[in-house]
Amino acid sequence: MPKPELLETFPNPYEARDYEVHMDCSEFTSLCPLGGVESDASELELLKGGSPDFGTIRITYIPAKTCIELKSLKLYLWSFRNDGIFYERAVNRILDDLVASTSPKWMRVVGDFNVRGGIKSTITAIHGKAPAR
Amino acid sequence: MPKPELLETFPNPYEARDYEVHMDCSEFTSLCPLGGVESDASELELLKGGSPDFGTIRITYIPAKTCIELKSLKLYLWSFRNDGIFYERAVNRILDDLVASTSPKWMRVVGDFNVRGGIKSTITAIHGKAPAR
Amino acid sequence: MPKPELLETFPNPYEARDYEVHMDCSEFTSLCPLGGVESDASELELLKGGSPDFGTIRITYIPAKTCIELKSLKLYLWSFRNDGIFYERAVNRILDDLVASTSPKWMRVVGDFNVRGGIKSTITAIHGKAPAR
Amino acid sequence: MPKPELLETFPNPYEARDYEVHMDCSEFTSLCPLGGVESDASELELLKGGSPDFGTIRITYIPAKTCIELKSLKLYLWSFRNDGIFYERAVNRILDDLVASTSPKWMRVVGDFNVRGGIKSTITAIHGKAPAR
Amino acid sequence: MPKPELLETFPNPYEARDYEVHMDCSEFTSLCPLGGVESDASELELLKGGSPDFGTIRITYIPAKTCIELKSLKLYLWSFRNDGIFYERAVNRILDDLVASTSPKWMRVVGDFNVRGGIKSTITAIHGKAPAR
Amino acid sequence: MPKPELLETFPNPYEARDYEVHMDCSEFTSLCPLGGVESDASELELLKGGSPDFGTIRITYIPAKTCIELKSLKLYLWSFRNDGIFYERAVNRILDDLVASTSPKWMRVVGDFNVRGGIKSTITAIHGKAPAR
Amino acid sequence: MPKPELLETFPNPYEARDYEVHMDCSEFTSLCPLGGVESDASELELLKGGSPDFGTIRITYIPAKTCIELKSLKLYLWSFRNDGIFYERAVNRILDDLVASTSPKWMRVVGDFNVRGGIKSTITAIHGKAPAR
Amino acid sequence: MPKPELLETFPNPYEARDYEVHMDCSEFTSLCPLGGVESDASELELLKGGSPDFGTIRITYIPAKTCIELKSLKLYLWSFRNDGIFYERAVNRILDDLVASTSPKWMRVVGDFNVRGGIKSTITAIHGKAPAR
Amino acid sequence: MPKPELLETFPNPYEARDYEVHMDCSEFTSLCPLGGVESDASELELLKGGSPDFGTIRITYIPAKTCIELKSLKLYLWSFRNDGIFYERAVNRILDDLVASTSPKWMRVVGDFNVRGGIKSTITAIHGKAPAR
Amino acid sequence: MPKPELLETFPNPYEARDYEVHMDCSEFTSLCPLGGVESDASELELLKGGSPDFGTIRITYIPAKTCIELKSLKLYLWSFRNDGIFYERAVNRILDDLVASTSPKWMRVVGDFNVRGGIKSTITAIHGKAPAR
Repeated sequence: MPKPELLETFPNPYEARDYEVHMDCSEFTSLCPLGGVESDASELELLKGGSPDFGTIRITYIPAKTCIELKSLKLYLWSFRNDGIFYERAVNRILDDLVASTSPKWMRVVGDFNVRGGIKSTITAIHGKAPAR
Repeated sequence: MPKPELLETFPNPYEARDYEVHMDCSEFTSLCPLGGVESDASELELLKGGSPDFGTIRITYIPAKTCIELKSLKLYLWSFRNDGIFYERAVNRILDDLVASTSPKWMRVVGDFNVRGGIKSTITAIHGKAPAR
Repeated sequence: MPKPELLETFPNPYEARDYEVHMDCSEFTSLCPLGGVESDASELELLKGGSPDFGTIRITYIPAKTCIELKSLKLYLWSFRNDGIFYERAVNRILDDLVASTSPKWMRVVGDFNVRGGIKSTITAIHGKAPAR
Repeated sequence: MPKPELLETFPNPYEARDYEVHMDCSEFTSLCPLGGVESDASELELLKGGSPDFGTIRITYIPAKTCIELKSLKLYLWSFRNDGIFYERAVNRILDDLVASTSPKWMRVVGDFNVRGGIKSTITAIHGKAPAR
Repeated sequence: MPKPELLETFPNPYEARDYEVHMDCSEFTSLCPLGGVESDASELELLKGGSPDFGTIRITYIPAKTCIELKSLKLYLWSFRNDGIFYERAVNRILDDLVASTSPKWMRVVGDFNVRGGIKSTITAIHGKAPAR
Repeated sequence: MPKPELLETFPNPYEARDYEVHMDCSEFTSLCPLGGVESDASELELLKGGSPDFGTIRITYIPAKTCIELKSLKLYLWSFRNDGIFYERAVNRILDDLVASTSPKWMRVVGDFNVRGGIKSTITAIHGKAPAR
Repeated sequence: MPKPELLETFPNPYEARDYEVHMDCSEFTSLCPLGGVESDASELELLKGGSPDFGTIRITYIPAKTCIELKSLKLYLWSFRNDGIFYERAVNRILDDLVASTSPKWMRVVGDFNVRGGIKSTITAIHGKAPAR
Repeated sequence: MPKPELLETFPNPYEARDYEVHMDCSEFTSLCPLGGVESDASELELLKGGSPDFGTIRITYIPAKTCIELKSLKLYLWSFRNDGIFYERAVNRILDDLVASTSPKWMRVVGDFNVRGGIKSTITAIHGKAPAR
Repeated sequence: MPKPELLETFPNPYEARDYEVHMDCSEFTSLCPLGGVESDASELELLKGGSPDFGTIRITYIPAKTCIELKSLKLYLWSFRNDGIFYERAVNRILDDLVASTSPKWMRVVGDFNVRGGIKSTITAIHGKAPAR
Repeated sequence: MPKPELLETFPNPYEARDYEVHMDCSEFTSLCPLGGVESDASELELLKGGSPDFGTIRITYIPAKTCIELKSLKLYLWSFRNDGIFYERAVNRILDDLVASTSPKWMRVVGDFNVRGGIKSTITAIHGKAPAR
């Protein structure tokens, strides 16, 4: 079960200026939902039924009052390791948890998953209005 | 003969937010039309006359009420395996079938086909208005 | 001498929707103009004087009533093989011939030529108004 | 069912000297054995049960009296398209058929198959003693 | 705890000839030993203490009487998912389990692990005498 | 401690026209903050506590009256070598120091840092209004 | 000393349509200014003091009445070979000379220079208003 | 018709030591034999019947008394431009012509041809005993 | 000053079989010797005089009784951070220190250093007799 | 005129062990011989007649008593900048000069030159007996 309580932040060291933070987390893994049914219980039984999914989570945001602490983000993403969850829900869940934790001015989460049955999936979810470049 | 009835969907788990799903299906194969005449009949005779085409189908969409189920998409794309069909028709046909099945807010289908006679073809068809980034 | 009469088309199988066709033709070759003078005569004498040029012709278009037939395009491009012609003229000539043959809603031709004297040249010509993405 | 009778050869144009021919055939496809049972019958029913496999067949040989005709090789490889066959048997079968057809001084066949379940397989079989380099 | 009992084999379809099978399994993950102490118990507590390791397991072998069944290999490698184990032991353990299961004429296992602390590790273990090329 | 006094400029040789200068500085290294506390003191003790960070600093600007002298930029970036500093502060600090030194019409600084704990971070900060292209 | 008098043009063969010409000249070399002082005198003494710079000059333009003759461009760029000149001046100088010679509707010159002291520099200068795509 | 009389040599400037010369000639083109029948006559009619082949000729040799002059090699390879010839014969023919012209201590010619019908061919022919490394 | 006392080992978990361990340490940095004179004193003054060097240290070995502990290796390599040392000495020093610490059956150390003045250096030193493959 | 007197060496810091030094010097430039006649005179007139050549010089050696000093090597290679010289002579000349300067146990010099007329040349010369690996 994803554990948003693991997420920590630190005060944004440069509030005077909007700037962008991007993080590529290339070692995300979760379990495929068992029989098409998602499970939030982190039980090891899932491992036998559902097959593991692998991918990269790409996070981009413009910090407001706080920044995401890198090590806590890593621990948070590890908490999906034994969960059975759809790609679509995982990406939106991560976005929700990060927004709740750090209240960014804008944030985008991309889930870039490995090939399954010859198909490579990428899910993109955005919070807030994209900044003008 | 392409079999749109193989396509299945599941309820969009995050209707509250527009997000984008992208799928690269790298193992698409169909047959080249025999004598320039397309055939919807999946007869093996075609194999002798028409030569096989290979390519990648790239699908991007913003889900509305439902999402495309990955395994059913794979089966649907396999159903082109013994069809004689033009590139241009295949891409538009796939777009039509997926739109009918999942009624997305926006969808793009790209067919990225292998070199034939020193020429590499790519066909792009879009349903709906492209979202602002 | 380029032979536009080799170009053939077939009826656009999806007129209901605008879509884009892209073709990379990586085996284009012509001759460099002899003494800076272009020659449309396909005489073999040219080969001794003018040195061969090599490149990729990249064609993108939105079909209207007809699509370009792939094999005829290949034959048409072969017809430049023994011509002495400037890069700039070749690209614009190909665009003119294709537009005359298939009357697309929009078309772009890019000539991406190999290094000569340490310089790599790319020529881009466009017919019609670029579509909004 | 693979059709070795499609293979054709032409007389080796340079018997005076041993030389090496290498061919990469990147568009090989067959079906996965249905329920772990191989089937030589090219029945379309297989398509529903067994999933398609894709890969590249890499052939290297030193011709003796004859060379393999390229177009006939392509047709021969297409004849696996609707067969359910193990990777290991396919590669050894192709080697056997080519050796029977052209009696090379030495030949190697490599089957380089696409990822399945996160695993990429490559099978290598050799006929005759590898030549000293 | 790795489960070698998950490994299955099928009869080698071409015993008449020695040939080579190579498999790249790119989605291997285990846990780092907790406090430098390895643990064979698959307890979730490990996840909090030990950080996950990721890598590719590359297996090459010459089959004797049997071949490794691909799907069972995938399940076997998944059984390391919640184990705390050193790289060096994991690679030698996989080699031992595969040799016990399929008794190959020769086998090599390479563990190609992701960067940790700026260092990328690769472990190579071999069973039997390498074949002459 | 970063030493902005090392930065030198020379008069812009082409004030008549706005143009863009881009510099990729691929050998940036600093120290990770010790116990999450940043330190501006360049004490070697830090090296034992904080681990080194590595990355590329990418600077783009439109010069006004002066240009940044390349060698002095290199020396300035070296002055971070034994500092414990957050990524977010480092990038904004570099932007501030360069803006103070050369007063550009527009400037962007990107910090592209190496993988730490499986996560790759990129920070982007901008001074002034991005020029129309 | 750069020699703009080496530049030659030929009449634009397609005035009826705006099109784009792009040239990558990958073998540009000049000398670094000696002691920070630029020198226009092509004296060999410079070679001992100033170290050579290497880079690629990328030119893009929309021709008006004339096109740049490729061979003359090569000779013109060679004329920088023994000059001590700043990157910023070189790129703007090339743009000025080419604009004076061919009066294009629009032109961009990019100087993409090799790494010096771990820093890679790129200078971009533009003449005229960028065309809408 | 290939014209070996175009080949020129110059005296080896370093006979005291064996050394290796390697040349990659990436712009080789010839015609495919018409109806499987090779033709040495350079008649343009061939162009209509036989389709053009493209490839890279890779030449490696250890010079004895003479070296191959680069420009003459280019002209010689151009002389295949309008010939209908098998890959196997072309590579052996080039080797024969070069050996006759320059009498090297050892020579290898590799023809690396573009994809035809999904198959990429490479032919390797060697004259003399490969040198020990 | 390099600190070999930081190196730690752990008992080889598989003494029964010779196997190979390879480690790429991509974040090595030291200082260039000041005025061509090496300095073992880790004084910060060096930083002003000598410029930093960057590179990758590649270590390959066959363990005997012990294996190198990864984290201690990282700390050991960090201890070169403020040293002025020649490439040639650094690589041989690392090899000596590792051999003294773990007494491997065979070991190779490669120093792959970044470009300096347009020159990229690689140093390779080996301890013991290379194993037969 | 190449200036071997610029080459400097320093005492080999590790005579106890044979090790290998490799240097890639990617910014070599000389002039093409004027009218096929080499010239050792560094006169600027050459620049007008002979066109510049570019390439990478790759040097590998096992030091005996001395090592090549990097900066002096760079200056020595710069001294070819205004020379008209054949590829074959340049590579052998560099090998001779380096052997005379540092008396290595073994040395190899490779000249990897840029494309000219569609042909890329590589020259390899070796001094001494290649070491066993």
